[in-house]
Amino acid sequence: MTVLLYDNPFSGNCYKVRAILALLGTEYERRQMSVTDYSERIEVLGGLNPSLTVPTVVLDDGRPLAESNAILWHFAEGTEYLPEDSYERAQVLQWMFFEQYKHEPAIAVVRFWVAMSPDPPPAEEIEKRRRDGVVALKMLERHLRERDYLVGERFTIADIALYAYTHVAPEGGFDLEPLPAVRGWLERVAAQPGLISIGD
Amino acid sequence: MTVLLYDNPFSGNCYKVRAILALLGTEYERRQMSVTDYSERIEVLGGLNPSLTVPTVVLDDGRPLAESNAILWHFAEGTEYLPEDSYERAQVLQWMFFEQYKHEPAIAVVRFWVAMSPDPPPAEEIEKRRRDGVVALKMLERHLRERDYLVGERFTIADIALYAYTHVAPEGGFDLEPLPAVRGWLERVAAQPGLISIGD
Repeated sequence: MTVLLYDNPFSGNCYKVRAILALLGTEYERRQMSVTDYSERIEVLGGLNPSLTVPTVVLDDGRPLAESNAILWHFAEGTEYLPEDSYERAQVLQWMFFEQYKHEPAIAVVRFWVAMSPDPPPAEEIEKRRRDGVVALKMLERHLRERDYLVGERFTIADIALYAYTHVAPEGGFDLEPLPAVRGWLERVAAQPGLISIGD
Repeated sequence: MTVLLYDNPFSGNCYKVRAILALLGTEYERRQMSVTDYSERIEVLGGLNPSLTVPTVVLDDGRPLAESNAILWHFAEGTEYLPEDSYERAQVLQWMFFEQYKHEPAIAVVRFWVAMSPDPPPAEEIEKRRRDGVVALKMLERHLRERDYLVGERFTIADIALYAYTHVAPEGGFDLEPLPAVRGWLERVAAQPGLISIGD
């Protein structure tokens, strides 16, 4: 069986999975799910993922897996994209949990509201969330001032996880101009051999 | 050096770390941080954790680690509390990312607002967030109807991660009565040999 990805081309979380699969040269099929119309979700994903979120993958043995960063980890295990050192592995997880707790809920959600949502919340709520995103971006900036990559001075799935929504943050009205370390890191990540872009 | 935990006794995220350290019999020191007064955070945690959150640990080799579920993973690696099977490991991560994305931001945050915050938001905002928490609890319920533990039919750090805020959810006004599978699972987790309670 080929890996099956329940996917959406706008979603940075889905992009993470396409990025690691492309880096590894793993063949897969894509099935596109809407991110604005959820009417299909229970029927299609109900038996695979209790959260009904994309990405959801069905592995080549038929077993399902969900949560973008768990999927990244699973495919990267044993490859150059996930360190072997136990402390570096824990740091990769630290950054991926930071991403899902502080970064994605602000930056991805504001981008969705601004660029995609048929029914965005009031401007005041968007601005509040955007301020949270700026705080998360400043944390990244501070960390990257002293290093080229998030963990262990080389490109890992922590970089893929944070790159996904950081590089499209301007679509949500986030200004990356005051963040030179983040901008330099985005360029280094984008230049990784084999990394696809979100539109691919 | 002894492991040092920057801790708060009210925080379920900090409880996760105390729980795994107690299960493993690892000695550690606790340094209590306020969860309502953040004035000390930059001075104490600034060099250790860019997010300035608790728990933050300093490992026995002097290196810092943050994010409760990354810390759980790090200490549990190589023990009975983290499976060796690669698919089960990915499922443990799936549940821990679910916890930080959908469960904690609703259930822990509402509990904090209701039971602890000196400056809670309007009742309407609390109710909205409480509805998100009920959705997350129903996802847990559906999953636990068919199994005794979250992953691989045995107690793992996925159970610790989800137990932390689920078992104190009633403090945030969440009613567990309609969730018999969750209640049965909470009892099984609480009965694990060596598991401390959040007040310990």
